[in-house]
Amino acid sequence: MTQLKNDTFLRALLKEPVEYTPIWMMRQAGRYLPEYRATRARAGSFMGLCTSPDYATEVTLQPLERFPLDAAILFSDILTVPDAMGLGLYFAEGEGPKFERPLRDESAIRALTVPVLDKLQYVFDAVSSIRKALDGRVPLIGFSGSPFTLACYMIEGGGSDDFRHVKAMLYSRPELLHHILAVNAQTVTDYLNAQIDAGAQAVQIFDTWGGALSHAAYKEFSLAYMQRIVAGLKREADGRRVPVIVFTKNGGQWLEEIAAIGADCVGLDWTTDIGQARARVGDKVALQGNFDPNALFGSPAAIEAEASRILAAYGQGSGHVFNLGHGISQHADPEHAAALVAAVHRLSRQYHQ
Amino acid sequence: MTQLKNDTFLRALLKEPVEYTPIWMMRQAGRYLPEYRATRARAGSFMGLCTSPDYATEVTLQPLERFPLDAAILFSDILTVPDAMGLGLYFAEGEGPKFERPLRDESAIRALTVPVLDKLQYVFDAVSSIRKALDGRVPLIGFSGSPFTLACYMIEGGGSDDFRHVKAMLYSRPELLHHILAVNAQTVTDYLNAQIDAGAQAVQIFDTWGGALSHAAYKEFSLAYMQRIVAGLKREADGRRVPVIVFTKNGGQWLEEIAAIGADCVGLDWTTDIGQARARVGDKVALQGNFDPNALFGSPAAIEAEASRILAAYGQGSGHVFNLGHGISQHADPEHAAALVAAVHRLSRQYHQ
Repeated sequence: MTQLKNDTFLRALLKEPVEYTPIWMMRQAGRYLPEYRATRARAGSFMGLCTSPDYATEVTLQPLERFPLDAAILFSDILTVPDAMGLGLYFAEGEGPKFERPLRDESAIRALTVPVLDKLQYVFDAVSSIRKALDGRVPLIGFSGSPFTLACYMIEGGGSDDFRHVKAMLYSRPELLHHILAVNAQTVTDYLNAQIDAGAQAVQIFDTWGGALSHAAYKEFSLAYMQRIVAGLKREADGRRVPVIVFTKNGGQWLEEIAAIGADCVGLDWTTDIGQARARVGDKVALQGNFDPNALFGSPAAIEAEASRILAAYGQGSGHVFNLGHGISQHADPEHAAALVAAVHRLSRQYHQ
Repeated sequence: MTQLKNDTFLRALLKEPVEYTPIWMMRQAGRYLPEYRATRARAGSFMGLCTSPDYATEVTLQPLERFPLDAAILFSDILTVPDAMGLGLYFAEGEGPKFERPLRDESAIRALTVPVLDKLQYVFDAVSSIRKALDGRVPLIGFSGSPFTLACYMIEGGGSDDFRHVKAMLYSRPELLHHILAVNAQTVTDYLNAQIDAGAQAVQIFDTWGGALSHAAYKEFSLAYMQRIVAGLKREADGRRVPVIVFTKNGGQWLEEIAAIGADCVGLDWTTDIGQARARVGDKVALQGNFDPNALFGSPAAIEAEASRILAAYGQGSGHVFNLGHGISQHADPEHAAALVAAVHRLSRQYHQ
């Protein structure tokens, strides 16, 4: 394998010394970039992008051409996994992703099994292709949705603002939800390990919806299954550690417990003070975050001031990967994203001397 | 004034001894009740309900006829206040509330002033009418949106999922947002004091969107203005203390700071463990909450188990007002709400012996 030219991101995840605070942005390859929209138009559809290693490689690299980001992230979607389980992913015009066969009745749930990974070969091919195209420029991050977050889509059959079916099942038939989560956890473990085999140099578990649960339910139905995954992941490739990042949106109240499941890094959304988070768990894990993605709607000067505030709150030393607290908005101005990346690189050097 | 027959709610807010844990439900008068939908159909529109003291009284009392709730809450809407400021509230079919003249340009913002309270006389008339109709059965809660939450609607011109305009202003032109918030804080103070004069026996400030901010921005743009309101409220009426409840949805990370602004009670959404919250701030304030409203989609047995868990987490003694962690869903089954109220009343007695 090619030698990494910029391994700042990997070193920060392991709290090893760095020269500056590395940055990447969740959803950095996406609709806010005109070049992404052009590629997507050529591909014909969102899944057309995901299922073609060539297109996935092209869009993964687009933000790196614009900004000196310190990591690339596989372009894909968390719903590839339930699609491989046979739930029938489709995109209704203007409605977001949906499943033809949401998991609602007991017999369908009992029949759910870990899918053959061959069905996701296009993802692993994309990882290999991206890794090759990167040619050691920056590390490549693989990812998956968390078991609970995947279950939300699988049970609701699409996006939801109240998780009505999920919560009915969680409170009334918890054993059925546990079956789905156990299948998901094994699937995600296999899926992430195959991404690592294909060349992913770090992996992130996105727990977008665990934060919609009570503390008790979060521990039982989301965190426990992420812990199971972390325990089953390959942690080394090419003689180098493969760090694991766990990110629960709205999980700021539960940092101590999240930091204890064995991941190298915990992602923070923008509501958590990163200085307080470091005091709570910074001896155990690195922290990733946590710029409010919608602060990108402010002026470049305001963006720089807010980046400066976050860098100062984290303070001296390694263990901080700068990121947004959630995915970048499709309405964000790419010039504002450029201002953020430049500000973080420039302003963070003082904290690494 | 008529003697209160059931003052359990008021005593719990002041951490005085009670026989059981009182309960009310946010949005308890609402679309999940068929009798509410019938009254709304007669009134012709949502604002037709709000602006008629007779209709507002009728729907306020409806949930009390079904369930032995320990408090009534004024039926109204938080958007009455910006409507009185002249922003032109209207309801677009299937789209929720909107404003004709959202606050976007500097001259409109500088022209914003505290409205003449006469424009909200229909609200105060509703409070008087409800208080009379209650005839001392349970206390009546008045309410308002928080200055920041009102500003979100005033600036975005309606609901938003990213608060794009608000955050652009917050980060780039904070002085403009501070002007709006100062006007809102004075208006809300006057508005709640007039509700207290009209008969409200407790008041709640709903900070629905403060939890969408970073910790630093929350303190500066939401909490500081709620503190200003609390300091300006009349705290006694009919020779009895008028307790103030502050509720920031998604504010669980900031409880210590919220508990320090002078309110009697802090509302919790369902993501916070109420036992941990009590350990953090229970010596300073009472706590209200925090049953996941969507746990009402579970079975009655599951609802009872979850209520039992929350009561046990709070533990022995007064200072807990049971509530949902957010408004009840329009899709909730009224029989399930009945099961919750009965369970809380029955299961809580053991914690007040």
